[in-house]
Amino acid sequence: MSNTKTALVISAHSADFVWRCGGAIALHQELGYYVTVLCLSYGERGESAKLWKQSGMSLEKVKSERKAEAEAAARALEVHDIQFLDCGDYPLELSEEQKFRVVDVIRDVQPNFMLSHSQYDPYNTDHMYTMKLSLEVRMIAQAWGHKPGQKVLGAPQLYLFEPHQTEQMGWKPDTFLDITSVWDKKRAAIECMEGQQHLWDYYTRVAQNRANHFRRNSGGQAGGRAAEYAEGFQSVFPRTVDEL
Amino acid sequence: MSNTKTALVISAHSADFVWRCGGAIALHQELGYYVTVLCLSYGERGESAKLWKQSGMSLEKVKSERKAEAEAAARALEVHDIQFLDCGDYPLELSEEQKFRVVDVIRDVQPNFMLSHSQYDPYNTDHMYTMKLSLEVRMIAQAWGHKPGQKVLGAPQLYLFEPHQTEQMGWKPDTFLDITSVWDKKRAAIECMEGQQHLWDYYTRVAQNRANHFRRNSGGQAGGRAAEYAEGFQSVFPRTVDEL
Amino acid sequence: MSNTKTALVISAHSADFVWRCGGAIALHQELGYYVTVLCLSYGERGESAKLWKQSGMSLEKVKSERKAEAEAAARALEVHDIQFLDCGDYPLELSEEQKFRVVDVIRDVQPNFMLSHSQYDPYNTDHMYTMKLSLEVRMIAQAWGHKPGQKVLGAPQLYLFEPHQTEQMGWKPDTFLDITSVWDKKRAAIECMEGQQHLWDYYTRVAQNRANHFRRNSGGQAGGRAAEYAEGFQSVFPRTVDEL
Amino acid sequence: MSNTKTALVISAHSADFVWRCGGAIALHQELGYYVTVLCLSYGERGESAKLWKQSGMSLEKVKSERKAEAEAAARALEVHDIQFLDCGDYPLELSEEQKFRVVDVIRDVQPNFMLSHSQYDPYNTDHMYTMKLSLEVRMIAQAWGHKPGQKVLGAPQLYLFEPHQTEQMGWKPDTFLDITSVWDKKRAAIECMEGQQHLWDYYTRVAQNRANHFRRNSGGQAGGRAAEYAEGFQSVFPRTVDEL
Amino acid sequence: MSNTKTALVISAHSADFVWRCGGAIALHQELGYYVTVLCLSYGERGESAKLWKQSGMSLEKVKSERKAEAEAAARALEVHDIQFLDCGDYPLELSEEQKFRVVDVIRDVQPNFMLSHSQYDPYNTDHMYTMKLSLEVRMIAQAWGHKPGQKVLGAPQLYLFEPHQTEQMGWKPDTFLDITSVWDKKRAAIECMEGQQHLWDYYTRVAQNRANHFRRNSGGQAGGRAAEYAEGFQSVFPRTVDEL
Amino acid sequence: MSNTKTALVISAHSADFVWRCGGAIALHQELGYYVTVLCLSYGERGESAKLWKQSGMSLEKVKSERKAEAEAAARALEVHDIQFLDCGDYPLELSEEQKFRVVDVIRDVQPNFMLSHSQYDPYNTDHMYTMKLSLEVRMIAQAWGHKPGQKVLGAPQLYLFEPHQTEQMGWKPDTFLDITSVWDKKRAAIECMEGQQHLWDYYTRVAQNRANHFRRNSGGQAGGRAAEYAEGFQSVFPRTVDEL
Repeated sequence: MSNTKTALVISAHSADFVWRCGGAIALHQELGYYVTVLCLSYGERGESAKLWKQSGMSLEKVKSERKAEAEAAARALEVHDIQFLDCGDYPLELSEEQKFRVVDVIRDVQPNFMLSHSQYDPYNTDHMYTMKLSLEVRMIAQAWGHKPGQKVLGAPQLYLFEPHQTEQMGWKPDTFLDITSVWDKKRAAIECMEGQQHLWDYYTRVAQNRANHFRRNSGGQAGGRAAEYAEGFQSVFPRTVDEL
Repeated sequence: MSNTKTALVISAHSADFVWRCGGAIALHQELGYYVTVLCLSYGERGESAKLWKQSGMSLEKVKSERKAEAEAAARALEVHDIQFLDCGDYPLELSEEQKFRVVDVIRDVQPNFMLSHSQYDPYNTDHMYTMKLSLEVRMIAQAWGHKPGQKVLGAPQLYLFEPHQTEQMGWKPDTFLDITSVWDKKRAAIECMEGQQHLWDYYTRVAQNRANHFRRNSGGQAGGRAAEYAEGFQSVFPRTVDEL
Repeated sequence: MSNTKTALVISAHSADFVWRCGGAIALHQELGYYVTVLCLSYGERGESAKLWKQSGMSLEKVKSERKAEAEAAARALEVHDIQFLDCGDYPLELSEEQKFRVVDVIRDVQPNFMLSHSQYDPYNTDHMYTMKLSLEVRMIAQAWGHKPGQKVLGAPQLYLFEPHQTEQMGWKPDTFLDITSVWDKKRAAIECMEGQQHLWDYYTRVAQNRANHFRRNSGGQAGGRAAEYAEGFQSVFPRTVDEL
Repeated sequence: MSNTKTALVISAHSADFVWRCGGAIALHQELGYYVTVLCLSYGERGESAKLWKQSGMSLEKVKSERKAEAEAAARALEVHDIQFLDCGDYPLELSEEQKFRVVDVIRDVQPNFMLSHSQYDPYNTDHMYTMKLSLEVRMIAQAWGHKPGQKVLGAPQLYLFEPHQTEQMGWKPDTFLDITSVWDKKRAAIECMEGQQHLWDYYTRVAQNRANHFRRNSGGQAGGRAAEYAEGFQSVFPRTVDEL
Repeated sequence: MSNTKTALVISAHSADFVWRCGGAIALHQELGYYVTVLCLSYGERGESAKLWKQSGMSLEKVKSERKAEAEAAARALEVHDIQFLDCGDYPLELSEEQKFRVVDVIRDVQPNFMLSHSQYDPYNTDHMYTMKLSLEVRMIAQAWGHKPGQKVLGAPQLYLFEPHQTEQMGWKPDTFLDITSVWDKKRAAIECMEGQQHLWDYYTRVAQNRANHFRRNSGGQAGGRAAEYAEGFQSVFPRTVDEL
Repeated sequence: MSNTKTALVISAHSADFVWRCGGAIALHQELGYYVTVLCLSYGERGESAKLWKQSGMSLEKVKSERKAEAEAAARALEVHDIQFLDCGDYPLELSEEQKFRVVDVIRDVQPNFMLSHSQYDPYNTDHMYTMKLSLEVRMIAQAWGHKPGQKVLGAPQLYLFEPHQTEQMGWKPDTFLDITSVWDKKRAAIECMEGQQHLWDYYTRVAQNRANHFRRNSGGQAGGRAAEYAEGFQSVFPRTVDEL
């Protein structure tokens, strides 16, 4: 079991992982990876408009509904583990203690790769913060002097998943993943997000158009792979390979 | 034999391929690829200072010496095929007919990947020109209406190999290749470049330091691969994958 | 009639204007503009794969089919005027005489705004060339010494319309146009492009997702405009306004 | 009165709003907008050199003089409302409570557009901080779960006004506003800044040269608008329009 | 005399050198340099609106007036040598033969530094072309195989002088030169440009504001140099120094 | 003695100053400067892997060994003064009080120039933080209202020294310093870093290759300076000069 490959998703709000990398999660679970999802907040204040428009709503109720939704989506994606840090949102900011809890998770998971938000997002400073935090906690997890004796982290890739309104974020995907075989799971997970029904078809269309990009970059008119759904990712670090 | 993998290097001047991707060439030959090197010029005017400092030198003599050097280096790297287009240098500029000859080579080779120069180089406009040309000829080779009936090109990656003074060029490597096993061949090829002896050790040091980057990105202090020599490359196009 | 507003589209290949700004064209025609479309080539070599896969095809036949398609699309969009310069494609490059013909068109139209391709496109150097050409001919059209006595051009905005695979092009839209009211015309024009049926739904999805961006930037959850289809554009030049 | 248009300026130090967008303020007041200016600090430590060179100066005295100057300038510009948060400067950093006070102001004003500092400024980290803060508080003001029941913010444009030494800041104006009609008010406001007399003519020249840019981009030699004074702004978010 | 320092200005149109680096020219002449100005065209078609608005104007007349103006300005600046290549403008494009004539000039001058246009200019493609050309001819002048036997060029800095509307060009000055002592000469040269009287005060204001930047970067409030007029430049190549 | 030139290095971890600017330090000491090195942390948690791999190690022991190493290196470089702030690392973050202590040091030193880390470093967020901090404390040190009566700081250049994996950091050197004459001192200082022996030759190779860049930019094939070891730096602020 120590040979099981693993991956870690760091999600600012509890729904982000679904839209942005639900396909990657489901696919890697099928490939035998153990994928852990870490939700820093529930998006309870800033990404739950539909709930707040209901009467008699409270912060705790919103959190609890958002958590239930995220857990349902995680089940649909067959996520190995989902954890909630409940750090608050709008704005999201972690204390040193909370950062060290994230480091604990990273060291525990020992991910082969990590997934998080884009570097720039003028619409959502929580997303920017989470990307910067991901770099910081990855670095701490690599430090031999942090909780000496624990197994330190190697050098996993950090993939930045697709933001909303990609061009405004300066996000440039360098990797397209074919998620056709797990699309049904991703769509099922998406449909757990009852509060954001206006995005169900939006992200279906994103996946279909990313599949066009997959085809074009795998051969185009000369015989590209017939992917129907795909996700794009931007790598932070260079790859090390034995063949180009 | 139709299953043989192939690669194509487009080199502005006849020595560029040695310093910049000699390791990738030798390694992929060992992996069973057929690698073709296309030299657009001999670098006879601009990159042959040492020869021109000799008395009695002529353009034809310089070309012939440069060609001999390049061929010797190609043998050291066990290049499958090396071709010289003799388009002239400083400045290098191809006519439409010459461009179509490059397209012929591309279609003939049907490369799994291509290698060429960086996008920006204020010291050497021939290098910039060659990168732009590589995009143009790759596009023409993909056109069904160019010499209809010929097999069109798919969508091979174009890797930009390492320029001189990398930071001035805005070149950012996203792929490091371990060339430790073929280093002796690369060094032997480098030593064929008698006119640029001052660069032999320079590029040996580059390869050693790139190996440090390989190690750091493949695990760092937590057990990175013990590469001793490496080369870096920047991808122009996104990758299409089935696993992150 | 001298008060009629006008617009000019400079399209590298004869189909580009449909996918990329068909909505803007139809909408501005409805607003009373006269929109002229200038196709520099038919895309006969590089963007007609489906035709070339048919037997007995020739360059002239392809051109003629592409022209017919473009004219049909223009009718669907109620384009005021469509012109074909037949400069050849893959690669596209204009002689000085051909550039001056473009300048003639610009001066004749005296556009209130211009539309053309994105600045960078590693997949399609014809598109990059056309953007650069658009800057050049706009500048020549402004020169008092070019065909003195003709009415010189003012300072129309040059909008860069949406490329394929936007993030790879560094294209960042700063203007979203609601094309809901003319969507049927754009879809009809799209369906004239029989050779590229795989893109019909692709660009329908683009328009739907751009409408989401329109909504988000016109009020979002707090009451954004209920656009269903939109197009995005990047401005080259600053705007001059009397109110922010 | 609920139909009155409004605007909000977030100024790091109490004098910034005068130099950088005094014209926009005065002009929009004349257009019927209610413009609110929010000064996060007085610039008491870092931008009051002249006062500190006087003998017997204290922090409170400097603040009080700076406040008086800012109020005088606000009167000259006919600002609807000016508020001082007194958060301290050099460095400026807001607590969560202070951030929420800014959010209160935003929600109270419900601005049609916002104005703040440039994104990068190596000379003045308070300015960078204020831009980032503006994104953060705008986001919080949009959150339905922040003080539920309050009216949430829509999606106002955030314009970045002109910094000092523009090129060092990577600031690129995409909007020029003609302030000729209110120039006298801006100059009067500028002259309230007794501590920075060396900048009076500097910013007059900036306004005159920006007017040249206004003319060039509104028609140039072919009949650009004869603006004499202008201000430039960079938009953070895309515009949503019904006509290009 | 062989020890005389030299500089070379490559100017797209005959007036550019005056506005953009007239101060640097006059100052270095006073410092004992021999400064050569090379005008690739007269700007006869695109930058002579005022002349073309006169009746009975012809291309030859315009060129002759523009040449006279440039020569007068050169005298005012005490330029060592001014040469006109008459390559045509709008668009400007040099044949290989014309490029080699520029190379001849460079080798003849053997400049300690070169001055030319900014890298990007969407308003004026001749300016972009000239910057790219400057890199190309500098490179050819360094080639030992170009006219072997001639003295090759070393590695002079290429400074990009200030364009119009600097922020639109992505131009970022890294060097400010105090031209206070030669301001009268620059203003006199500027006043030779009778056709562009609307720019006399514009560029005077630029020089005054650049002096503010000089002061700020040479000590600011703590005692910066009291420059009154300055010019800014962007370096293409790194400096080599013995002291930081 | 008040005329002694000074320099200040702000180093995130106690070893950074050795690899990144040891040559500049030793050279300027020989030139008569007083160079002060300020180490914000010892790198005790994150950059002391070798020590932590030993048994019986504690945080205090690591700090003390790291301090001893840094002091030995400082002696080898003949550093005027080295100070340790012990702010902690991985992550490094200064309280306002600690920031003001850095400001005290800056004002005390009154540096002619400052040296610190690159702006971006996804591998090491402490380095990014230190660069941002350097801008902030430089600004506070310039404020007349910070500890009024103290001598305020002028406008010293901030040079960003060379990071590890330069291209990943977007670092672009604009200044190369010849450190050949003090190389032995830098190598001796490097060899004090017993915990990072794998980097001794790495940074020797960096210095040798930077010397190649020095030669190329000081004349190249036409007679560049025969530097054997060099260091590169990126300037944050523009220079103010009397001669180009």
